[in-house]
Amino acid sequence: MSLSKPKIRLFVTEPLGSNGIIGLPADQSHYLRHVMRVKTGEEIALFNGKDGEWRARVDGIGKGWASLELQDQIHAQRIESDLWLCFAPIKRTRIDFLIEKATELGVSRLQPVMTQFTNSTRVNLHRLKARSIEAAEQSERLSVPEICEAISLEGLLATWPGDRELLFCDERHGARGLVAVAADQSASDRSGYAILIGPEGGFDDGERQILLDHPATISVSLGPRILRAETAALAALSTWQALTL
Amino acid sequence: MSLSKPKIRLFVTEPLGSNGIIGLPADQSHYLRHVMRVKTGEEIALFNGKDGEWRARVDGIGKGWASLELQDQIHAQRIESDLWLCFAPIKRTRIDFLIEKATELGVSRLQPVMTQFTNSTRVNLHRLKARSIEAAEQSERLSVPEICEAISLEGLLATWPGDRELLFCDERHGARGLVAVAADQSASDRSGYAILIGPEGGFDDGERQILLDHPATISVSLGPRILRAETAALAALSTWQALTL
Repeated sequence: MSLSKPKIRLFVTEPLGSNGIIGLPADQSHYLRHVMRVKTGEEIALFNGKDGEWRARVDGIGKGWASLELQDQIHAQRIESDLWLCFAPIKRTRIDFLIEKATELGVSRLQPVMTQFTNSTRVNLHRLKARSIEAAEQSERLSVPEICEAISLEGLLATWPGDRELLFCDERHGARGLVAVAADQSASDRSGYAILIGPEGGFDDGERQILLDHPATISVSLGPRILRAETAALAALSTWQALTL
Repeated sequence: MSLSKPKIRLFVTEPLGSNGIIGLPADQSHYLRHVMRVKTGEEIALFNGKDGEWRARVDGIGKGWASLELQDQIHAQRIESDLWLCFAPIKRTRIDFLIEKATELGVSRLQPVMTQFTNSTRVNLHRLKARSIEAAEQSERLSVPEICEAISLEGLLATWPGDRELLFCDERHGARGLVAVAADQSASDRSGYAILIGPEGGFDDGERQILLDHPATISVSLGPRILRAETAALAALSTWQALTL
């Protein structure tokens, strides 16, 4: 058994434990064999979001299949931050980038939200999921974010959990900055947070009103600069993570 | 004169003031005429990093030329944050993205730094400059960041200005977070800050040592997550901006 850390990391859905055997699906087997040129006897790392990260030895690999023998646990599962990102879908390259960066920054749930000024009418969940798994594999995350079906803003608010604050990134003047809001929250008994970023055109007046009327909403300002939607999302996520470390 | 804000914004190097006439260079004239289909009589906005933002009326436009008549000042020049980003060059799509986002986030200088583990050996300054101007035009920034020639880490430290703190984003454990460091700095008499992000492989031991030995260096941690170089840069920039608003 090698003691160096395997370079390749894959996300799997099966349980991981001692003396287990894992059969990989066709796409991952193909990736290992043809893209990474992995051979029998080599080691990779596996994680599933529950059982930590495991070293696995390739016991056999062929056309569309690979069988791995689990060795030892490299990392125990970590408790990850409970932070959701609710966002209005944006164009393809920018949404890919957003998913990748939000995954690296440790977001626990990605929730597309349809609004009045949302440009994209269709969200390819399969694609977003593949992107986020790839980003988790390439960072050292031990989980992948949950990716939810797109929902309307009204639907989101109607079913909003009572124990989660909704940090509404408000482009209009007057909202407090994240630093001040985070300082207040240290005494709060809410268990989780969500960041909500609107589309490039912002929210319409009606949407703003139902947001401001909702009991979970806290308006926050991201400062004086005009940021694109995906930049605003990443700025809010990284600042919030730094403030609530 | 229209009172709505022009949708097109262009960065120019000439002075802007009342009753002025501006002739645009061929590339910008071409862009206005063939990409944006702008016609005589229409208005665009101009900024130069010094004189605020001005409304300008197209007085004539043709093959490779455009003549604009300055109208009124839409925004006075703002004082922008004095924050540098020193970064080891990364691959093309990722560096483009980094330049765009750092520009939106208000960075004042972009300084490529060559290190032991830097993958790219050549930096196309012309390309980086074009990217940052485009990002400034598309956000509402009134200036463009200064883009410097690439320099070695040793060269950077040897000529480092005495009144600027160097926030060295250190991947090893033990450094304090940005929140704690920012709290200390409120009493400091340094006038500016720079964020330094290493290449994907990190700094080598010798480089780390000369960094830690330099009087301007403050080691900072970006938290428990493993971030790609460009994600780390943006997380540090946005958090620092939020903390020092």
